[in-house]
Amino acid sequence: MVSAVKLEVVVMPKRNVLDPQGVAVRNAVRELGLSNVGTVRVGKIIEIEFTGEPDEAKLDEICRDLLSNQVIEDYRILGAVLK
Amino acid sequence: MVSAVKLEVVVMPKRNVLDPQGVAVRNAVRELGLSNVGTVRVGKIIEIEFTGEPDEAKLDEICRDLLSNQVIEDYRILGAVLK
Repeated sequence: MVSAVKLEVVVMPKRNVLDPQGVAVRNAVRELGLSNVGTVRVGKIIEIEFTGEPDEAKLDEICRDLLSNQVIEDYRILGAVLK
Repeated sequence: MVSAVKLEVVVMPKRNVLDPQGVAVRNAVRELGLSNVGTVRVGKIIEIEFTGEPDEAKLDEICRDLLSNQVIEDYRILGAVLK
């Protein structure tokens, strides 16, 4: 029996959307000595712990409607069983 | 030869630090029908593409000093070779 499951939702700006925060980080890390850095993108990661079996279809729906903005963002769900 | 490397830096609030954004997401997903959700934490994920070999020691230093606030956040570096 699964007693605890942790899922991670990663929400990233789409490839063709300008990511000013990513550009700022890229410029900063280059100045700090990492000269071979290309693209940098900054997104969100949401760790969700479930007690018992997660309803992945429902989670997918929530990711689409609540946790991401489908116009400018993509999401992916990563899974890891804890115990 | 490695031609492109993508590293991901995950920055999460520490376990013992209050994460109001995580609490808000937890309450919202519970109301939307995922009743068996426990803790939710919201962090940042920074995708960094390198042309050539990344300087991981330098990146670690930058994560510590620039990309995270060590008082309230932890970071981890995940790696993936692209090509």
